[in-house]
This record gives sequence, C-alpha cells and structure tokens, in this order.
Amino acid sequence: MSLPELTQAILKFRDDRNWAQFHSLRNLIVSLNLEAAELLELTQWKNDADMTAWQEDSGAREALRDECADVLLYLLLIADRAGIDLEDAARRKLEKNASKYPIAKCYGSSRKYTQLED
Amino acid sequence: MSLPELTQAILKFRDDRNWAQFHSLRNLIVSLNLEAAELLELTQWKNDADMTAWQEDSGAREALRDECADVLLYLLLIADRAGIDLEDAARRKLEKNASKYPIAKCYGSSRKYTQLED
Amino acid sequence: MSLPELTQAILKFRDDRNWAQFHSLRNLIVSLNLEAAELLELTQWKNDADMTAWQEDSGAREALRDECADVLLYLLLIADRAGIDLEDAARRKLEKNASKYPIAKCYGSSRKYTQLED
Amino acid sequence: MSLPELTQAILKFRDDRNWAQFHSLRNLIVSLNLEAAELLELTQWKNDADMTAWQEDSGAREALRDECADVLLYLLLIADRAGIDLEDAARRKLEKNASKYPIAKCYGSSRKYTQLED
Repeated sequence: MSLPELTQAILKFRDDRNWAQFHSLRNLIVSLNLEAAELLELTQWKNDADMTAWQEDSGAREALRDECADVLLYLLLIADRAGIDLEDAARRKLEKNASKYPIAKCYGSSRKYTQLED
Repeated sequence: MSLPELTQAILKFRDDRNWAQFHSLRNLIVSLNLEAAELLELTQWKNDADMTAWQEDSGAREALRDECADVLLYLLLIADRAGIDLEDAARRKLEKNASKYPIAKCYGSSRKYTQLED
Repeated sequence: MSLPELTQAILKFRDDRNWAQFHSLRNLIVSLNLEAAELLELTQWKNDADMTAWQEDSGAREALRDECADVLLYLLLIADRAGIDLEDAARRKLEKNASKYPIAKCYGSSRKYTQLED
Repeated sequence: MSLPELTQAILKFRDDRNWAQFHSLRNLIVSLNLEAAELLELTQWKNDADMTAWQEDSGAREALRDECADVLLYLLLIADRAGIDLEDAARRKLEKNASKYPIAKCYGSSRKYTQLED
C-alpha cells in the first residue's frame, strides 16, 4: 500500500469508530509522541550489543515493526489534519538539510549544524 | 517521491556524510523521539482554538511540515536499519488495531482497548 | 522525607537489586523520558475540561501521584550519577530564567525568550 | 532550598509574570516532556564512553544541571496544580516498587515486573 492508500485506510478506520471528534491536531501530536516513547521503551536498559542480540528474536522484531507502524499511522493522521503532503515535505526537508549540513563541513561529524566549524 | 525512493535519498544523504557510524538502531530511535518532541513543542501553551488560529500562519505551516518530515525521515532510517517494510507494517498493524478495537465496542469512545467494556 | 533522604532510599533500593550496572547516565535519562511519557499518556484524548473532571476520580489522582513520583525518582538517580545538587541547581536555574524572562517584557505572554519583543 | 521553598519561589516567578493562565495541568505536563527531551538531546549520538568523556567538560555539566533543574521546576508546578506532596508521593511509590520488584526475583535483572519469572 502506498501512503495515500494507507491514509484512506486509516481515515476509514477512524470514521468507522466515530473518532474524528478526538483527533484534534494537538491530540494527534501527543499520541505520536506516546508511540515514539513506546519505540524508545524497546531500547530501555539495552546497550548497542544488547540491541543487536535482541533483534534476533522474532517477538522483538514484531514489536519493533508494530511500534514503527503506529508512528507512521499517527503521522498520516497529522498530515491529513494539517493538509501536508508527507512525501513532498520529506523531499523538501532533505534539500534543506543538505544546505544546513554541507558535506565538506560535516563529513564524519555528529555535531549539530549550529555547532559546525568554519 | 515514494517511500522507497525517499529511503534511497536519505541513505545517500547519510553516506555522503559518513554518518552511518552514528546510526545505531538505538541512536536513531532516540533521534526520532527528539523530532517528535519538536513537533510537540509547536503545540506548547496552545489550546485547541490557539492551534487553529496558529495554522493560518505560513511560518507555522512550514514548521509543522518540516517537523513531520523529520519524523518520517528518521522512521525511514529506522525501518532500513531494522529491515522493516514500513507500508506493509502499517497495513498489518491497522488490521491488528481493527481486532483490538471492534467497532461495536468502541464507537465514539476514546478508551484504551484494555479498558473497553463488554 | 527530604530529597537527600529520598536519594539514600532510592540508592539502597537500586543496590539491594544489583541494578547500578544498568544505571548509566544515558539509560537513566531514557528512563526519565519514558516516565514523562507515562504522565503525558494520562492526558491523552482529554481537553482541559476533561482533565478537570478526571481529577475528581481517586484512581486518577493516584495515577498522577505515582507518575510524578517516578519522574522524581529517576531525576534523583540522574542527579546522583552526575554529581548534581538538584535543589541548588533549581534555585540557580530560576535565577537564570528571571534574567531570560524580565517581567516587563513577558508579563502575560507565553512567547519563548528568543521571541520576546523589545 | 527545600522543595516547599522552591515551590514558593517558582510560584512567585509565575505570578510575577501573570503566567498561571497558561499553566493548565495538561500544558505543564507537555512542558515537562519537552524538558525531558532536552535532557535526552544531550545524549544524542553519544555512546556510554562518549557520555563519560563529555561530562569532563564544564559546559556539558552546566547543561546537564540546567536541564535537570528545568524538569524539577515543572514537576513542582505540576505537583502544586494537582495537590501532590512530591516527597511523600516518592516515598510511597518506592514502597510500591519494592513490592513489584522483590529482591529475590529481580536481583541483577533488568526485566520489567510484568516479565519477572517465578
């Protein structure tokens, strides 16, 4: 399914349940943050080696897949509510990021653009 | 751009800067949470009426679009790192959610599925 | 119990369980964020009027109290790990905030200090 | 300064600026989450070794101290708004946690209480 098709499916899911009344932009953004936190919880108490071992487990992979899906579904609801074309927005943001992070200045560096040295 | 094309573009952006070394699954999930928080910050101190008025402003709409884009870009990096097909994951999660939230039980209710009444 | 006494109690709780090994500064900060998200979850789908009504319920008040407590307990663990005197830090930060937000400029305004007008 | 004294100081700071109008419980909880995210941002792209080295820097220590202070200040505002005695709440939550995590079952284990084995 493409993003526009997924958007139609999640809107139908919402409307079948009469949930649009709860879906203010603010509420959707809070919910996206809660889903992001559930993804973060999967990393709790694990170092990088633990994370790698953990991903061998099929239950772990399913949990990761489900939480990523939940983040995407709320992102689609937010984009619909705010009139945003997500794929276009991502393409344009990537161009902005390319200007903020010129290759010559940030190659191999994890500094924030506000801290890049000349 | 479709999600697979966006994924290719963000991976090239990453590799042009030699940033894969920083992109452990754990680090990417932390970064997704930080972007979600930037989206949340756009709602800070605003009630629902304020949010509606605020969206009339073109700077506000650009900020919303950019933060949504950042969430999607990190989600694509996470999906790539974890071997997840995001669109397929979202479609399957929506089916799971339909089972957890049967229309008859949750029509017009914002209760969590663990608190739905028989 | 004062904060120093609470700190001693939570450190004993940790050491009785041999958990210091998991309590890197990074892990503790992630955990604090997860507890903050649990507090946020208590507000999910509620507008301001709902929040007020909800607080009449004793179960709700207990949930609020418990989540606030969890945030404080992780904050004490972080402060201990980082060698921070929390009460002194808060007093000094309040002084900084008073400089960033002069009364004459920000009276009755929710603008961020970077957006205050002269 | 003790927590009750800090609470008085932050309430005066708020009232001097006529900000109580913005401080609904919901808004304060959102703000606490944003401050927690600023603390999380200090860990972004750093592994445990990086974190240790980073703390040698006095600017880093000040940033940590300030972000911890901001979390505490919002927690005090939330506790005041919700009528919670924070120190008492933390003491009682620690007792609950001791029941959820009996030493014999969770010694040296980072499992969640719902996943502890008999």
